[in-house]
Amino acid sequence: MIKKVLIANRGEIAVRIIRACHELGIETVSIYSEADQDSLHRKLATESYCIGPKLSKDSYLDMIGIITIAQSTGCDAIHPGYGFLAENSDFAEMCESSSLIFIGPMSETISLMGVKDVAKKTMIEADVPTVPGSDGVVKSLDDAYEIAEHIGYPIIIKASHGGGGKGIRVARNKDELTQNYKLTEQEAESAFGNKSLYIEKYIENFRHVEIQILGDYHGNVIHLGERDCTVQRRMQKLVEEAPSPVISDKTRREMGETAVRAAKSIDYIGAGTIEFIYDLNDHKYYFMEMNTRIQVEHPVTEMITGVDLVKSQIRVAMHEPIPYKQEDIKFEGHAFEFRVNAENPYKNFMPSAGKITEFLQPGGFGVRMDTASYAGYVIPPYYDSMIAKLIVHGKNRDEAVQTAKRALGEFQISGIDTTIPFHQNILLNDAFLNNDYNTNFLAEQDIMK
Amino acid sequence: MIKKVLIANRGEIAVRIIRACHELGIETVSIYSEADQDSLHRKLATESYCIGPKLSKDSYLDMIGIITIAQSTGCDAIHPGYGFLAENSDFAEMCESSSLIFIGPMSETISLMGVKDVAKKTMIEADVPTVPGSDGVVKSLDDAYEIAEHIGYPIIIKASHGGGGKGIRVARNKDELTQNYKLTEQEAESAFGNKSLYIEKYIENFRHVEIQILGDYHGNVIHLGERDCTVQRRMQKLVEEAPSPVISDKTRREMGETAVRAAKSIDYIGAGTIEFIYDLNDHKYYFMEMNTRIQVEHPVTEMITGVDLVKSQIRVAMHEPIPYKQEDIKFEGHAFEFRVNAENPYKNFMPSAGKITEFLQPGGFGVRMDTASYAGYVIPPYYDSMIAKLIVHGKNRDEAVQTAKRALGEFQISGIDTTIPFHQNILLNDAFLNNDYNTNFLAEQDIMK
Repeated sequence: MIKKVLIANRGEIAVRIIRACHELGIETVSIYSEADQDSLHRKLATESYCIGPKLSKDSYLDMIGIITIAQSTGCDAIHPGYGFLAENSDFAEMCESSSLIFIGPMSETISLMGVKDVAKKTMIEADVPTVPGSDGVVKSLDDAYEIAEHIGYPIIIKASHGGGGKGIRVARNKDELTQNYKLTEQEAESAFGNKSLYIEKYIENFRHVEIQILGDYHGNVIHLGERDCTVQRRMQKLVEEAPSPVISDKTRREMGETAVRAAKSIDYIGAGTIEFIYDLNDHKYYFMEMNTRIQVEHPVTEMITGVDLVKSQIRVAMHEPIPYKQEDIKFEGHAFEFRVNAENPYKNFMPSAGKITEFLQPGGFGVRMDTASYAGYVIPPYYDSMIAKLIVHGKNRDEAVQTAKRALGEFQISGIDTTIPFHQNILLNDAFLNNDYNTNFLAEQDIMK
Repeated sequence: MIKKVLIANRGEIAVRIIRACHELGIETVSIYSEADQDSLHRKLATESYCIGPKLSKDSYLDMIGIITIAQSTGCDAIHPGYGFLAENSDFAEMCESSSLIFIGPMSETISLMGVKDVAKKTMIEADVPTVPGSDGVVKSLDDAYEIAEHIGYPIIIKASHGGGGKGIRVARNKDELTQNYKLTEQEAESAFGNKSLYIEKYIENFRHVEIQILGDYHGNVIHLGERDCTVQRRMQKLVEEAPSPVISDKTRREMGETAVRAAKSIDYIGAGTIEFIYDLNDHKYYFMEMNTRIQVEHPVTEMITGVDLVKSQIRVAMHEPIPYKQEDIKFEGHAFEFRVNAENPYKNFMPSAGKITEFLQPGGFGVRMDTASYAGYVIPPYYDSMIAKLIVHGKNRDEAVQTAKRALGEFQISGIDTTIPFHQNILLNDAFLNNDYNTNFLAEQDIMK
């Protein structure tokens, strides 16, 4: 049994986890940096403690400090949320060796999926389709030339230990490969401390479609359908939806089965996501990467399935079997999530910290708000710019769009700039409304014009 | 087609209707009294106009003023919400004769169901079970004695034109009947301008169970299941839920069919509710009254059916057929609504107007908020004390209770007193949790002790 959980995170996801714990009758301990004294995750937890100064490295990334607080407050478990320490296998291992339950997969699973070329090899072994490319790490530039000739240009060069959109470059011919190979190697070395690279065929016209999976300690793995996260700006997701409006029922079933097979092959425990490239040219899909944590966009899945994914994570961590069989999971209607960031979409998404002087939330039928913001709250400039997630649900995509439009229209945040006008423009965009776009959507169109 | 709707109401229901209109692409005109200048229903509407001074009789009940604004702003329709003019057949008729669509049933239907003994007679003709009692209005005290002897004490004396818990008295013997007959007659005369009374057998151990129905101009009537509104204080509902945890599937089906038959018998158009007494002693149910409008507690039905009732009202008013057959209506999970009133539950629910200095809304999985309140809003003392509706949904009653507990726990309203602590106590009460209560629940137990 878990009776008390430390939440090693801040903002809306910390609040999200506190809510799930409290509904399960579990006490919570929140940690906050000196910049987060007035934060909602501090106020809502059963107990809360200052973990350190404003910078993440001194606070939300202070592994030893976090474990010390968890132990001294009598916590049984730590929930890492997303970001910060969520995919840090050292931290998961440290929890394990401190007799604290890490609410997430085993530390080895995190390691395995964290190194991209290793993850890819593992998926190939599990018969999961992957993008044609190098067999693991590229040995040399000459090796790279040979692979590129074999699979054909354009190709994409990726850092094995990369993430967050860094350490990725495209090469359309041998000259570009020569140049970008070295640049990527340098970037990988400086950003990730490891210069290993691998190469893949570059698929240009694709949608980002990911499958939510859930595994338990009893060998059960189910999937909860897909999310379409194709609306991205510089590899950052901004709008997500479920179900994906571009895949067929047959593909949906196949992708789900593939994701379950992938998760089973690594004895996956807890909530995870298998991200796929869905090629719009030939309608094939390929493994992209696996995220071994709860994701920002998990609520769209919750809206169409009725399954509380964070509660499920906690129940799985308590060794409860998943209470659903695959056939129990039904999909109802359509959901969107809009990430409201404290950024000025008219000024190239420049961050906009400061005091929220007015905060009028949308509500009513089909609207869910996940936020840690409120009127009077001062957004610190040190962390992620996302300040609220507006989630809507409707009988179908058109109804969900209508609900989204009216909810965004009544969402009033004063004192700072937000991306609300950006989302309103997305909902007026023909390509978006007609599903005629791929991951290059925002690079190709100036939504704010 | 309806292109512009005047909302003849205020507060959360005005906001609710504005939301539905905007999702349908319909413009809105709101009216506000001089006391409601900073109200959210004023801010969110496409246009808004001051209708008059603070008192309802000079503003929200000013029929001619409202119709004048509707006409001068080019509205096609008026939505009355609940309360104020919602069940005023004169107003509905005035709309009809001004070529304005009254979003609700025909004025004759409102009249018919507004006179309680006439409504009852109509239901008897439609083969709807009713409580044994007088055949229409009681002619005299002697007549009353005779009826009471026939059906047996205790009996209840009701004003034909009564409503809102007024003009109702119980008599347990002939002496009480003698005394209360006259008192009720006097009260009926002064409160409703009509002293007609009728008599019914008094059922003491019952639940308030009501069926939501929806009819259209094409002869279709469906029901959307029941709501249990047994938690009442002085005839005022405080907590509602769907489905009712005390009726069987067989009774649910029968009550639904009975309600549809009742609505069909009067060619009912739009959203309406048939309220029933569900006798806990013999598990029989009896017609109580019909409400010819949207009800405060409609969201619990929306949560378990996924049907937007206010949008449905508007679509029906546009002569669209109901897009569902009865068998399309499925019930998913369990929902509660908590009416948060600006009242002090520790001081006999004394009203508490004033400025809201802090307003931290609950949110996240399973939570819906319907409110017109916000941080900085000043609650005027002239109107209904309800300032927010917290609605929760869970897989079953237990999960919904857990979600309700955590949502109420994080709902922070400062500056005024609210009934949030009352609801928190309700959720700790064994009788409530075990469904072991009837409409006398709050009269018998001091929840705040």
